[in-house]
Amino acid sequence: MSENSTFDAVVLKELNKPLELIKGIQFPALKSGQTLIKIFYAGLCHSQVMEARGHRGKDPYLPHMLGHEGTGEVVAVGDGVTKVAPGDYVVMTWIKGTGQEAGGCCYAGPSGETINSGGVTTFGEYAVVSENRLVRKPDGIPFDLGVLLGCALPTGAGIVLNDIKPAKGAKIAVIGLGGIGISALLAATTFDPTVLIAVDIEQSKLDLAREFGATHVFHASKDDWEAEILALTDGKGVDHAVEATGLAEMIERSFNVIRPGGGELVFASHPKAGDMIRLDPFELIKGKKIRGSWGGSSKPDRDLEILADLFRKGHLPLERLLSNTYTLHTINEALEDLENRKIIRALIKINEPPADAA
Amino acid sequence: MSENSTFDAVVLKELNKPLELIKGIQFPALKSGQTLIKIFYAGLCHSQVMEARGHRGKDPYLPHMLGHEGTGEVVAVGDGVTKVAPGDYVVMTWIKGTGQEAGGCCYAGPSGETINSGGVTTFGEYAVVSENRLVRKPDGIPFDLGVLLGCALPTGAGIVLNDIKPAKGAKIAVIGLGGIGISALLAATTFDPTVLIAVDIEQSKLDLAREFGATHVFHASKDDWEAEILALTDGKGVDHAVEATGLAEMIERSFNVIRPGGGELVFASHPKAGDMIRLDPFELIKGKKIRGSWGGSSKPDRDLEILADLFRKGHLPLERLLSNTYTLHTINEALEDLENRKIIRALIKINEPPADAA
Ligand SMILES: [Zn+2]
Ligand SMILES: [Zn+2]
Repeated sequence: MSENSTFDAVVLKELNKPLELIKGIQFPALKSGQTLIKIFYAGLCHSQVMEARGHRGKDPYLPHMLGHEGTGEVVAVGDGVTKVAPGDYVVMTWIKGTGQEAGGCCYAGPSGETINSGGVTTFGEYAVVSENRLVRKPDGIPFDLGVLLGCALPTGAGIVLNDIKPAKGAKIAVIGLGGIGISALLAATTFDPTVLIAVDIEQSKLDLAREFGATHVFHASKDDWEAEILALTDGKGVDHAVEATGLAEMIERSFNVIRPGGGELVFASHPKAGDMIRLDPFELIKGKKIRGSWGGSSKPDRDLEILADLFRKGHLPLERLLSNTYTLHTINEALEDLENRKIIRALIKINEPPADAA
Repeated sequence: MSENSTFDAVVLKELNKPLELIKGIQFPALKSGQTLIKIFYAGLCHSQVMEARGHRGKDPYLPHMLGHEGTGEVVAVGDGVTKVAPGDYVVMTWIKGTGQEAGGCCYAGPSGETINSGGVTTFGEYAVVSENRLVRKPDGIPFDLGVLLGCALPTGAGIVLNDIKPAKGAKIAVIGLGGIGISALLAATTFDPTVLIAVDIEQSKLDLAREFGATHVFHASKDDWEAEILALTDGKGVDHAVEATGLAEMIERSFNVIRPGGGELVFASHPKAGDMIRLDPFELIKGKKIRGSWGGSSKPDRDLEILADLFRKGHLPLERLLSNTYTLHTINEALEDLENRKIIRALIKINEPPADAA
């Protein structure tokens, strides 16, 4: 099945403990709808921070693998898999597309212990991935940048392209410039907004946002950004706000800067388990709207090609979103750097991809 | 201008005090866009209870007139009024339609004191009403039942006809069977829902709902209605819930009974000033939707005729919604009876309508 008889992968054994690199995991037999992927690159996002830090509440699946975005090569396929074949290069994504839903997987660790995984994981040399979490890698997308097609880009750009569909000349604000927020901002620039506002707590991200086309940027803790946005919009508020910090308080505050009578707030990053948002019902009656987005309502089989096309045309400078590269050995640093907002998105290099393919 | 030189009207002088019937109010000169209406009937709804009891927060307009739904006859019109003419029978509604927005009015009381009013009031023998709050009374609607066309019916039925537009066979729940809730229920029956659930705290209203076509009714305090609704819908929840109690807690609970992936909660009655609703953002990400409705998104000039047509065809037994008739002298009893849920909607008879017209 591969040149090795076992492989290494990162495992979450206990909440609030560092991730552990486990060597000598056995390749399980593939069930119907499953594929075995050799991973080249994985992306690490706030979802893994939330999982590892216990912010998603109790975790009945421990110990388990993790990671939900990446690029790799198909090594083997189980029964009934028609979407990909061995040798295909693929993007792995947590957003379900066409193909069989094969559910999770159980691996045997070096001492025979069980290690769980969901339908897709990416923090290992190999992973068993459900057919419906794979899309063939679009041409012209390097394997490293391709990890962004698995999560940040379909979610952030999807919020704009699928959920909002802004009219030309709309007034848009993006609150929180992580991978999802920056992707939303980039997508928003393609609709020629008259006002495109970016809000974050890191000056470097605000500078990047301005370079990418934000007309106004505000520092979340130094500026009175809600008042500034209202002042910029004749006291009314923006047509669309994208909230991407994953903080309940920021969702509530973002609801203050959309206009009554049709202004809409969309958020996708979800706060800690149990954190609630408080809204004034009369603001909803006055026609303010709020919506949660599941992965930007993306259909990966359709949307990854659209996003790749925007990239090939130069609208998505994805290389600017990935500043540091980590490995399975330094993955805990990646968690910390992301948690401390030092980086937008962490890139984990796992296996060397073929030099000739892109 | 009329047979009298002054008229009587009910005034809110102080929050949390009984309404006062003031005699000898002078007819003001009509400004552009204003009309003078002789009122036949007014409806009294929870909005006036909320206003009179101080639940809308500070009231800078005291003393002021009130009432926002009624029927009457046009006595005189100001400059530029083209929508109606003296002698026309009209429905008065707080929901804005075509015509000039003439704003509020100031009356001089018997001692020359100022009494304020908004663009429409109806708790007086006469009232100055802005052209855009009038619609010519549809044929075949009695003057008493016509008051329901000014508020409960466009709001409640409008939520179903304009906001929800349910597919045939949808699963619908209505929580709170006041005038808005019952109107929503009646409108919902015209879409052949497979499940039509009614929830209220008064058994008599549940009995009425069943008679009107509810397939299941639950008592809000005796039944575990959230669990019952989930059990009725394979644990998923309904496609549409209409919340019409005006209680923040009930909005939150109603959000529990809509299905992830597209189920929507719509509410129109707004809670006490300052009452917030608490929502789990992850439920929104899972595709539950929530929306406030401004008067059922009704356009009175279009929708009153549609509702009248449903009435003429027998789909809206409006007479069942109005059990007790009050007068300007007994209007405080009407407030109390509505507040104590003894009635669905209070009808206030003010002037005798012409016997020959309907
Ligand atoms: Zn992710
Ligand atoms: Zn009303």
